[in-house]
Amino acid sequence: MASKHRQIFINTTSGTDIFDITREVSREVGESQVVNGAVTLFVSGSTGALTTIEFESGVVKDLKKAIDRMAPEDIYYEHNERWGDGNGYSHVRAAIFGASLHIPIVDGRLTLGTWQQIVLLDFDNRSRKRRIEVQIIE
Amino acid sequence: MASKHRQIFINTTSGTDIFDITREVSREVGESQVVNGAVTLFVSGSTGALTTIEFESGVVKDLKKAIDRMAPEDIYYEHNERWGDGNGYSHVRAAIFGASLHIPIVDGRLTLGTWQQIVLLDFDNRSRKRRIEVQIIE
Amino acid sequence: MASKHRQIFINTTSGTDIFDITREVSREVGESQVVNGAVTLFVSGSTGALTTIEFESGVVKDLKKAIDRMAPEDIYYEHNERWGDGNGYSHVRAAIFGASLHIPIVDGRLTLGTWQQIVLLDFDNRSRKRRIEVQIIE
Repeated sequence: MASKHRQIFINTTSGTDIFDITREVSREVGESQVVNGAVTLFVSGSTGALTTIEFESGVVKDLKKAIDRMAPEDIYYEHNERWGDGNGYSHVRAAIFGASLHIPIVDGRLTLGTWQQIVLLDFDNRSRKRRIEVQIIE
Repeated sequence: MASKHRQIFINTTSGTDIFDITREVSREVGESQVVNGAVTLFVSGSTGALTTIEFESGVVKDLKKAIDRMAPEDIYYEHNERWGDGNGYSHVRAAIFGASLHIPIVDGRLTLGTWQQIVLLDFDNRSRKRRIEVQIIE
Repeated sequence: MASKHRQIFINTTSGTDIFDITREVSREVGESQVVNGAVTLFVSGSTGALTTIEFESGVVKDLKKAIDRMAPEDIYYEHNERWGDGNGYSHVRAAIFGASLHIPIVDGRLTLGTWQQIVLLDFDNRSRKRRIEVQIIE
């Protein structure tokens, strides 16, 4: 009845990272003992995002190329002029993909497809310790 | 109080399909008799996605063209090298659009705008029976 | 236990607007007195969307440019042929970004990052009074 809050932490690199966090999320859901409900995932920070994908190294590279087309790293970003941290592209990419993901829990399990994994997209240009908020509601 | 779980199944074609599923979702919400809460929709499978749109045939075509620009079907995809199923573009498109959608329920109804419909985006290059998980929480 | 429903209204301009609505959402969450749960935000209407971003004027301009690349205003849209309202690009942009956003509430606060704000993206080509549905679940 009450929401159950947990957190996942992931250490990232300075490049664009795509991490499979399905195991971590599944473990939190399992430990919550919620049988029927939903989990809200939210990445705190403005240069990260969440989505699902078939986590296969080819697809992961293909997605990175698509991201490069949508918000290239090497074009002019006004943000960089102001802050000088060079991660204007990171912010734009994160805003396109979105920080939240919501997945039903049925019979104690996430309703993911067989080849569907939950991924953290980390777009920042420096390594970080990412925090993913996990809110489990039944 | 308890979450109410339902499923919607949609048969797709081998091309990129955009299906209006508003009626199906509204029916599930109505039958659940939830007056005030929210519905979580989640497409199980890594080549499908969900969003909302004005479901008008012109807009639907316009969206398909935008998808083609973001992740063209006829460029090189590393996924295709490995698996030979030719649907690398499908995976990339699905990851961009996202598998989950969350809509409030107020007075027993979805809070959609007048011209706003819920759509399933099916990007796979073969026909499938798609499963959409519907979790209704009050 | 019961969901708490609220609404936020924002007056938009005829151009593409990006509004920081963090303060409005935080106020609704505070007034709800929910300590542990989640808020579902949903923009009613098919030419608006929601995401999070570092709301800094440089990043906001950078995001607008990325949106222009993904769904330019000045290309051909079939929707415009049929309806003559010239906002085909608005519908496509909204469908790409998505109408819903879900954020956990922990200790009575949204789990946003320090530099992460909630934004309404209004893509319509005429000024509107936008309605954002706020459903708070504990």
